[in-house]
Amino acid sequence: MVHRMPAERTRQHTTPVAAARRRRLRADRARQLADLLRHQVLAGRFPDGVLPHEEVIGADYGASRNTVRQALDLLRAEQLVERQPGVGTVVVCRKYPHALDRLRGLAETLHAHGRVTNEVRTINPVAAPAPVADRLRIPPRGEVLYVERLRRLDGLPLSLDLTYVPMGLGLSLLDADLENNDVFRLIEEAAGQPLGTAEISLEAVNADAHSAAVLEAPRGTALLMLERLTHLADGSPVDLEFIRFRGDRLTMRGLLHRTL
Amino acid sequence: MVHRMPAERTRQHTTPVAAARRRRLRADRARQLADLLRHQVLAGRFPDGVLPHEEVIGADYGASRNTVRQALDLLRAEQLVERQPGVGTVVVCRKYPHALDRLRGLAETLHAHGRVTNEVRTINPVAAPAPVADRLRIPPRGEVLYVERLRRLDGLPLSLDLTYVPMGLGLSLLDADLENNDVFRLIEEAAGQPLGTAEISLEAVNADAHSAAVLEAPRGTALLMLERLTHLADGSPVDLEFIRFRGDRLTMRGLLHRTL
Repeated sequence: MVHRMPAERTRQHTTPVAAARRRRLRADRARQLADLLRHQVLAGRFPDGVLPHEEVIGADYGASRNTVRQALDLLRAEQLVERQPGVGTVVVCRKYPHALDRLRGLAETLHAHGRVTNEVRTINPVAAPAPVADRLRIPPRGEVLYVERLRRLDGLPLSLDLTYVPMGLGLSLLDADLENNDVFRLIEEAAGQPLGTAEISLEAVNADAHSAAVLEAPRGTALLMLERLTHLADGSPVDLEFIRFRGDRLTMRGLLHRTL
Repeated sequence: MVHRMPAERTRQHTTPVAAARRRRLRADRARQLADLLRHQVLAGRFPDGVLPHEEVIGADYGASRNTVRQALDLLRAEQLVERQPGVGTVVVCRKYPHALDRLRGLAETLHAHGRVTNEVRTINPVAAPAPVADRLRIPPRGEVLYVERLRRLDGLPLSLDLTYVPMGLGLSLLDADLENNDVFRLIEEAAGQPLGTAEISLEAVNADAHSAAVLEAPRGTALLMLERLTHLADGSPVDLEFIRFRGDRLTMRGLLHRTL
């Protein structure tokens, strides 16, 4: 007969449970810490782009070394930071703020961050499919200009934009310098009036293989998907867009009010 | 010496290139079609939630059968639709609109869609880490209430919310019914004044393994990550939140203005 100490039995029983609980708690704390560090990283709060040593972070945030490491792993997986031998953990993200308060074209909203260029992949008139005709308030199968652009900031792919514009305005885009101008600006010029409002919807989706390849991102990467129907100041809809932003390159920023 | 017909050489040379080009074009057209169908799916435009037959979609959108299939594959990969034997392609998403125009709690914004319940995973006072103290304008290491909730709509996990509230207001949350109330409502009650504005930032990120497990979603799934600093009407910051929404369950909707 084998004698076991009660304490030993208890230990055998509780250890896996306790260990699982510790792992869960550490994962929760790592997420908590990662969120705080992410904000600091994106706000450019680390001088020279170098994060403090793990011990310093641990002391600052009251976190164990394991938790700090796990938090930094999360930020590394998001490609916000990288570990560099002899230097430490450094900020490597190039994430840009896109205004969510006002209706802005990409070059307008990012002018302080670099130069936006557009690779026009497709530009041709098409018969508007029903949902496009409906939203642009033109007759079914009426002609619209379809434009597909890969947009870059300082050469880095940022978004893939699919755009439908009624042919009246679309004609003026055919001859325009779409490589170097926002469609918004060109539409305002051609229409002789400013834009008014846009209905937007924003989603997070995993990139399909082909979209990922075009955006030079890994398959499955998180994309910020923006659908936007833009109207002229007089209320007429003039621009229906489906935009896939690389999630690792863009943050939407805005100010919400409790009452309007 | 082997004789080859010029045409044959040409064919050998161009066939792979032409095939690659056809694949690229079809992928582009599939994306284009998928975007239009996605809007219809999310807007609930298909009666009984059943999409038309592939031939009908092809005729409606002037697309080949292969393109239609590939577009439906994209929507299936996003878990918006499913193919059901004997029925066809049916809508299976449960994607809810979250207001992006006004500052709203989750239960407030989704009240027409179902019942929001909150599983409180953690609630305890902590010494505010520097970036939290800074943003909530309290002394460094001052006490804040930390709350972690898994939020569900009609039982389905929707978001994982990490919340920091200054202890003055936090005390009132300790005794409140957090399972069934938005923190916004509880704060307004305790503060005796409405909320004012919130600075938000929105990103798309791939879920880490642990967050994915908590949200009952596949690892790497696209999350809509919302960081929100909310102020009372008098301007004092009262609520710092880091919210991970399941990308497949939520759409942010808003109206942007060209000028303010």
